[in-house]
Amino acid sequence: MPAISSKGLSMPESPIRKLVPYAEAATEKGKDIFYLNIGQPDIKTPDCALDAVKNNDLEIISYSHSAGFASYREKLAGYYQKGGIPVNTEDIIITTGGSEALLFTMGSIADMGDEVIIPEPFYANYNGFATSSGVNVVPVTASFEDGFALPPISEFEKKITDKTKAIIICNPGNPTGYLYTKEEIEQLAALVKKHDLFLVADEVYREFAYEGKKHHSVLNEVGIEENAIMIDSVSKRYSMCGARIGCVVSKNKEFIATAMKFAQARLSPPTFAQIASEAALDTPQSYFDDVIEEYVDRRDTLINALHKIEGVKVATPHGAFYCIAELPVEDAEDFAKWLLEDFDYEGETVMIAPASGFYSTPNSGLNQVRIAYVLKKENLLKAVKVIEEALKVYKK
Amino acid sequence: MPAISSKGLSMPESPIRKLVPYAEAATEKGKDIFYLNIGQPDIKTPDCALDAVKNNDLEIISYSHSAGFASYREKLAGYYQKGGIPVNTEDIIITTGGSEALLFTMGSIADMGDEVIIPEPFYANYNGFATSSGVNVVPVTASFEDGFALPPISEFEKKITDKTKAIIICNPGNPTGYLYTKEEIEQLAALVKKHDLFLVADEVYREFAYEGKKHHSVLNEVGIEENAIMIDSVSKRYSMCGARIGCVVSKNKEFIATAMKFAQARLSPPTFAQIASEAALDTPQSYFDDVIEEYVDRRDTLINALHKIEGVKVATPHGAFYCIAELPVEDAEDFAKWLLEDFDYEGETVMIAPASGFYSTPNSGLNQVRIAYVLKKENLLKAVKVIEEALKVYKK
Ligand SMILES: Cc1ncc(COP(=O)(O)O)c(C=O)c1O
Ligand SMILES: Cc1ncc(COP(=O)(O)O)c(C=O)c1O
Repeated sequence: MPAISSKGLSMPESPIRKLVPYAEAATEKGKDIFYLNIGQPDIKTPDCALDAVKNNDLEIISYSHSAGFASYREKLAGYYQKGGIPVNTEDIIITTGGSEALLFTMGSIADMGDEVIIPEPFYANYNGFATSSGVNVVPVTASFEDGFALPPISEFEKKITDKTKAIIICNPGNPTGYLYTKEEIEQLAALVKKHDLFLVADEVYREFAYEGKKHHSVLNEVGIEENAIMIDSVSKRYSMCGARIGCVVSKNKEFIATAMKFAQARLSPPTFAQIASEAALDTPQSYFDDVIEEYVDRRDTLINALHKIEGVKVATPHGAFYCIAELPVEDAEDFAKWLLEDFDYEGETVMIAPASGFYSTPNSGLNQVRIAYVLKKENLLKAVKVIEEALKVYKK
Repeated sequence: MPAISSKGLSMPESPIRKLVPYAEAATEKGKDIFYLNIGQPDIKTPDCALDAVKNNDLEIISYSHSAGFASYREKLAGYYQKGGIPVNTEDIIITTGGSEALLFTMGSIADMGDEVIIPEPFYANYNGFATSSGVNVVPVTASFEDGFALPPISEFEKKITDKTKAIIICNPGNPTGYLYTKEEIEQLAALVKKHDLFLVADEVYREFAYEGKKHHSVLNEVGIEENAIMIDSVSKRYSMCGARIGCVVSKNKEFIATAMKFAQARLSPPTFAQIASEAALDTPQSYFDDVIEEYVDRRDTLINALHKIEGVKVATPHGAFYCIAELPVEDAEDFAKWLLEDFDYEGETVMIAPASGFYSTPNSGLNQVRIAYVLKKENLLKAVKVIEEALKVYKK
């Protein structure tokens, strides 16, 4: 039998999907599950996006430009400009989700054996993209006690070697919900400038900043135009994760020209989804206002309810729609499995993501879980009730 | 300024896109161009596929299963079964085009520095996927005189080293139009079995076999179930290249489990396009009959017209919609540029793809071009007329 590659063997399994078989078994047993484990919002996709697809009159669904529709890129540049980000059409490549943008970026800036430094906990699929690109992830650990603020710059400097090509941040953070301050972005800017590194910011949650806090894009930092690469996506902004449209944006022309070669090899991003995404740019501000209000409400509901459970601590998120909670258990993964396999409260149980999968340092975050507040308030409350009751009997 | 990766620098430019700036300049000068250079059919996408998208009533465009809709995979398995290919739902992963299927496959079967043997000339983007996977392409040259039949197996054996992981074929071939015989597939099957290699068949043109000739899938070969991997796509079959849906199919469970990890990292294939692709399976046979008839007609028209030009030779294609022609010029790339820059016949010129870009061996196919017969007959005739007139004056 022919052999699977070492790369294939070492591709990580998503920590979120790991528990899926347990959830399937629980469903078969008739349990109702609250899914707090995934970043799939239950918010309606804007009508303008859905209608544009329904009303399209294409007769031949042909390849588009490898960088995406010119009309879409132009309109998207306008959207960023309105938000104060000075980018133009030619600085943007439309990709098949933020996922593909991350893959093109890693391929363009790092070779086999090169290193990228990422504050942990981080979006687990960075591991997959790094493995498939042959790149090594070097973590710098952010602390639960600080609410996952940027670790001291000295911690980054300790990890920089001649193989280091980039620092990758997620802002606001998945799984932390942390929103970097202007000062933190400035510190990172100075660091990448000093060491001639790329600064890759995954800003797919850029619209989800709460309490009037402002999101600071790496593309706003003056002086690091050649270093800064921004990853974006329509998935969360318009609750259209299945469209599969994202983009990579940079003023570094050599970088964009390189990423374009990866884009050309795969021909083009999906046409129907580009139609939806271009139209989505007309989404009225009221849609976002409602969505943000809804998420803030859910966040407050979730955090307050969690705080009431003895032994549970939460790092309050200020962006995105996740939070990390510390539970009074030794092994949150075991607890998460047990919730699905052996527990229910009035026929209901919950699926949560053990946080250890979001850390690259072994044995980190063992008592932490990531909770996504993508469910309606009443369901969030029911879900937290399940967790509360479960903790009363787990391993007692 | 931070450095681009060596990988990024060595990513090949598509040989098809190379001439685009010349074509843009020609258009600006007011010339009409017949595009014989791209595999973008002008055939209408089936109504059932278009209608399914128009009539979809999704309110939230959410991530689908990473392997694609279960309903689509099941129906697709049925489609292959009807064609005599014994595969089931769990043997299929839906991908973002055949392109992504090729990328997942390379990642799953080969490590940095490993080799894949490919008969040349071959689909040029294999180079891009190989480069981005860190894999080396080892060519075995097929000959124009034999119509690009499978080179002798002894030529493959000469190239096999302990780094060789797979043989990749394209059947029917782009750019050759060659359709492998049952005997050729059997020879390859024996070879991969003997050397414990994967046999990857890119069958995205599997439906385009002419003169009643039968297409032989690698999945039909008994005894190489663990070796055979098939790449497919809706792009050409339903003239919906922009949908971006393909798949990778194999009975090798370890391979599929590995490819799934790549699929999970990028979350899911595009939802609207899956709706279109699932519906496209209901396309009536009459659609394909008409399309095949149209392509055969175009092929005959093109080949006959080319044969009439002095010094032009054509390797008659029996599948797909490309052919390789030898022109009475020394440097077909120079000729192709010259056609766009310096020539027109009654205000019209043509864009053709120099074939050297489809060879991996340097200085091969220098006097060859690839012609795609994706235009209506009358335009093909006009295009050939342009070539005929051009050859009369080029470098004279
Ligand atoms: C931080 C982060 N980056 C990137 C992605 C990828 O999203 P997509 O490929 O749908 O744009 C996700 C999805 O959950 C995410 O959470
Ligand atoms: C031989 C071959 N394989 C794969 C592809 C990729 O097609 P897609 O990604 O659109 O499925 C093409 C496109 O032209 C092709 O010609």
